[in-house]
Amino acid sequence: MILDGKKIAAEIRGELREQIEALRAAGKRAPKLAIVIVGHNPASETYVANKIKACAEVGIEAEKIAFESEVTETELLAEVQRLNNDPAIDGFIVQLPLPEHICETKILTAIDYRKDVDGLTPENVGRTVQGLPSIISATPRGIRELLARYNIPTEGKHVVVIGRSNIVGKPVALLLMQRPYLSLPGMSASSLGDATVTICHSKTQDLASICRTADIIIVAAGSPKLLTAEMVKPGATIVDVGINRVDDPASPKGYRLVGDVDFEHVEPIAGAITPVPGGVGPMTIVSLLQNTLQAYDLKFDI
Amino acid sequence: MILDGKKIAAEIRGELREQIEALRAAGKRAPKLAIVIVGHNPASETYVANKIKACAEVGIEAEKIAFESEVTETELLAEVQRLNNDPAIDGFIVQLPLPEHICETKILTAIDYRKDVDGLTPENVGRTVQGLPSIISATPRGIRELLARYNIPTEGKHVVVIGRSNIVGKPVALLLMQRPYLSLPGMSASSLGDATVTICHSKTQDLASICRTADIIIVAAGSPKLLTAEMVKPGATIVDVGINRVDDPASPKGYRLVGDVDFEHVEPIAGAITPVPGGVGPMTIVSLLQNTLQAYDLKFDI
Repeated sequence: MILDGKKIAAEIRGELREQIEALRAAGKRAPKLAIVIVGHNPASETYVANKIKACAEVGIEAEKIAFESEVTETELLAEVQRLNNDPAIDGFIVQLPLPEHICETKILTAIDYRKDVDGLTPENVGRTVQGLPSIISATPRGIRELLARYNIPTEGKHVVVIGRSNIVGKPVALLLMQRPYLSLPGMSASSLGDATVTICHSKTQDLASICRTADIIIVAAGSPKLLTAEMVKPGATIVDVGINRVDDPASPKGYRLVGDVDFEHVEPIAGAITPVPGGVGPMTIVSLLQNTLQAYDLKFDI
Repeated sequence: MILDGKKIAAEIRGELREQIEALRAAGKRAPKLAIVIVGHNPASETYVANKIKACAEVGIEAEKIAFESEVTETELLAEVQRLNNDPAIDGFIVQLPLPEHICETKILTAIDYRKDVDGLTPENVGRTVQGLPSIISATPRGIRELLARYNIPTEGKHVVVIGRSNIVGKPVALLLMQRPYLSLPGMSASSLGDATVTICHSKTQDLASICRTADIIIVAAGSPKLLTAEMVKPGATIVDVGINRVDDPASPKGYRLVGDVDFEHVEPIAGAITPVPGGVGPMTIVSLLQNTLQAYDLKFDI
């Protein structure tokens, strides 16, 4: 079975559109997301344009706030504070990477966690770990949602996560390991969390035999064809977070995008698998929209 | 080999005493810890007395701030804010449990992470996850220190953690899994972190066979004799975090303390093992002292 992230993301966008229309119909304002971008990195420009387009599709107001790359750290911190305090802004993100003279960590940690719709502040990460109300970063949230919508249970299952990044590996491991007290608006609550989770990475010995014991494998290592058929137990669920460019003279662009999984050989034995593109990617963008609505809706009373 | 927490904790106390004497000799003030206690729970009174005694032994100034159990949440929050702002206090802890009319989470999340020497605020937990400067909660820090001082490497080893509590299971798993960028004052930096980590809990299926693949097992489940000899690979390192009372008519108190490990049968096959008492317990108290000195010393520039 193919886990069709594109289709599920479209379904969720439809649900979000209805919820936001209902808000408007009740006389309330629309949720509003601000996106801060510094400089003119072409990839960043494209990502930001896609996010703004996705907002428009569901009725979230989006504001792009552009700075030239000469902006100082102090000026950018002041903008973060302004956005933290602006009641018309429900959530905001600072598009990475930032120019070298600006400390990304300093900027990110300055964001009020209640508006941190990328879910990357330490406060949000710690809250997620502790099971407190939090905004979960987009990719882990999207992965959990995709599994939930395909009714793939995680309770008591062995999940192997390959990769220990702050934006995917560590948070998705925590999310799937814990008690399912983090059910979120618009998300099916059943069978989320309660997995036995193993986190593997570059120092792991005998990755293949660990993977063969997994019911669910989440690969976020940034390495094409890292996960091969010999590493997969028949019937296992495979979630491929990788996005790698490989040369392809047959393609007009000279390259194509592939994940971290040897899809051709793994797909026949997997019980379920995400394609690249069209799997985790679309879920990540729609998670940002869900997070924005959550920031609009949620009262963080603790 | 017995991992003698009592002996190592005494060594560390000796090192702390020397460091604090050197500060005083240089004309600086001593570090100061405040301990907030509410009501008259006898166990809490004992814990607080032990912590104050441990502070005195190394030259940390300690102040006990006692409230009657009728104190309101608002009053206690005001005290937390006062301590956050008092430059004479380097760190403080609020002894748990609190009376039922006070939300523990609300109190704990109000503590400034730079003074949170119990390392339990979401900000500190998130910072630990992300590898940023942080104060690590006492038991995980003590476990890592104990392994380091006995030169037990974790890099590339398979660590199985049994238990997913906020104060032990989750943070120790994160600590041992990550890149060893969290080296701390007074701690040997080698071989910390970089383990492959599996987190098991009450929903885990076939715990025994997972444990048998482990090089290091950390048990923090609160269940006597949970870990038996059949679950242990010969030569594995066993860290027992459990403290359970079991009836013992032969003891003057009518009970004795045991861990989560069937020590009698596991010890002969383990490569190294912590006793209960005298293993993780003393390391936990000394970690609080180390955290207080860290809060005194450390500049959190991000």
